[in-house]
Amino acid sequence: MHSIESYTQLIEKEIDSLKIKDEPRNLYDPIKYLLRIGGKRMRPVLSMMSAELFGESPEKALNAGLAIELFHNFSLIHDDIMDNAPLRRGHATVHEKWSDKTAILSGDALFVVAYHYLARNDSKFLTELLHNFSVTVMEVCEGQQMDMDFELRNDVTIEEYIEMIRLKTSVLLGSALEMGAIIAGASMADRKKIYAFGQHVGIAFQLQDDILDLYANPDKFGKQIGGDIIANKKTFLQLKAIELSSEIQLNKLHSLSALENIESKVTQTRQLFDELGIRDLARAEMERHYAIAKESIHAIDVPKERILPLLGIAEYLMNREV
Amino acid sequence: MHSIESYTQLIEKEIDSLKIKDEPRNLYDPIKYLLRIGGKRMRPVLSMMSAELFGESPEKALNAGLAIELFHNFSLIHDDIMDNAPLRRGHATVHEKWSDKTAILSGDALFVVAYHYLARNDSKFLTELLHNFSVTVMEVCEGQQMDMDFELRNDVTIEEYIEMIRLKTSVLLGSALEMGAIIAGASMADRKKIYAFGQHVGIAFQLQDDILDLYANPDKFGKQIGGDIIANKKTFLQLKAIELSSEIQLNKLHSLSALENIESKVTQTRQLFDELGIRDLARAEMERHYAIAKESIHAIDVPKERILPLLGIAEYLMNREV
Repeated sequence: MHSIESYTQLIEKEIDSLKIKDEPRNLYDPIKYLLRIGGKRMRPVLSMMSAELFGESPEKALNAGLAIELFHNFSLIHDDIMDNAPLRRGHATVHEKWSDKTAILSGDALFVVAYHYLARNDSKFLTELLHNFSVTVMEVCEGQQMDMDFELRNDVTIEEYIEMIRLKTSVLLGSALEMGAIIAGASMADRKKIYAFGQHVGIAFQLQDDILDLYANPDKFGKQIGGDIIANKKTFLQLKAIELSSEIQLNKLHSLSALENIESKVTQTRQLFDELGIRDLARAEMERHYAIAKESIHAIDVPKERILPLLGIAEYLMNREV
Repeated sequence: MHSIESYTQLIEKEIDSLKIKDEPRNLYDPIKYLLRIGGKRMRPVLSMMSAELFGESPEKALNAGLAIELFHNFSLIHDDIMDNAPLRRGHATVHEKWSDKTAILSGDALFVVAYHYLARNDSKFLTELLHNFSVTVMEVCEGQQMDMDFELRNDVTIEEYIEMIRLKTSVLLGSALEMGAIIAGASMADRKKIYAFGQHVGIAFQLQDDILDLYANPDKFGKQIGGDIIANKKTFLQLKAIELSSEIQLNKLHSLSALENIESKVTQTRQLFDELGIRDLARAEMERHYAIAKESIHAIDVPKERILPLLGIAEYLMNREV
């Protein structure tokens, strides 16, 4: 059994040694910049852990995991343009530091590097891996489009919201895990189970994000509490509140969305959420997905002790305070 | 021997039957729109002709050719955003008709479809095809970046310009042809020759574009004569003129670039080009690349009559008036 740190070290070493050319600078500098400002490398770690779960050496899943990680970074560059985001991992976003044009083209180039890493896999797995990757990437695009569409809509349902976060975030975790399984020669039934594990962990993770945004311990959170409310984001909390509100409460929610005093906006919205029991409902939905995730991984046909590291990661993600 | 029309029909049929989903509409509608407004489908035709050249059934190269064609269309969507272009093939560009955001994301999705088609090839060719494709796509990105960089520079050399058009346009023709050769099991030596053919035809084609822009027969050209001069584009003609100008001529060129009367701007610039013999020099450079292209294809180890269709296409491209 390898430690997560040993996986992360291997991944960082591989990313450091990526042969990204120097010229044209405006094409390649942004790629180097984004890869240097880091991230947790959670996705390639999952690929490697999944390979090990199914009895394969984790290093075998490194190229596939890196493809996922590079794709993830590519999608951040393009999403940040679309979302007009100034910061990423505490640093200026690529389009802010350079320009929209540069961010579009550098993103495209990074996407190619992702496929290049995927193509380094043994040709006997290649068709399967490519299919899995392309389907997943397309779903992530769909999720991003739904997210943008939601900004302009006032009738988004909880089901649509869950589907959006599934596509935008969770399928990539599922795919990272399934790729490890493919490379380890796992059965189709086990591949589906590890994919389901990743997918439901991902949804639970996003719901936890929504909850923490408002209910985290301010001393530990490190970000402004209630950021989603201030930005009028349609999170699970908000959508659930709309669903359960009386007409009076709905009017209140509506007028709160226009309130300029952000402190009072957050406090009053939280009060209304508390009246409706939103936090517990969100927590219950999160627990439901976490339970499905655990059920899925327990059903995999491997010795029980092998699933412990992945279960540990899931448990850690569910109980984080940041 | 199949006719070009029969290839084009097969390609159009395949593009018509692409299973592009309906929802989210803002993601998939732009893809359908761009694919419907057409194009000559020259690149997949080249892949199919190349397969046939090397004794393989041309249909075998259809998926690879489509991958190239879909990538080409993807790159048009993103290039049009970066170049702020309002029209493509006589229709509104995607970012004009929808928005920049939509064009970024739909482009990304179309790029995935391109890789999806490539992945439909026999797994024994897949590693080779993916490598070829990714290298080429990266070069096209480099070419686009150089093109954008050139707009802000005043010291672009002819060599840099030729390298830019090689990367931005010609490598994709070379790759389309080489993929057909890979699928037909051609030798590495022959693959290099057919690639060189495509690459030099591509450069010659672009030089022909530069010449036609100013020297085409206005009755046949269908576009404004001198469009590049009006837009102060750094074409081969312009760069060659700068290279050969005396100080007086250089000052003249410089002041012409700021002239508001476009008719007189075009006429006077052409006069100066004529004094310097620019048209003949451009034509000579074009002929030089065309000669290398012909030499490359003649050196391929196949019966001579098999190269005639590709030679015919090259000859047609070199003598076009539009």
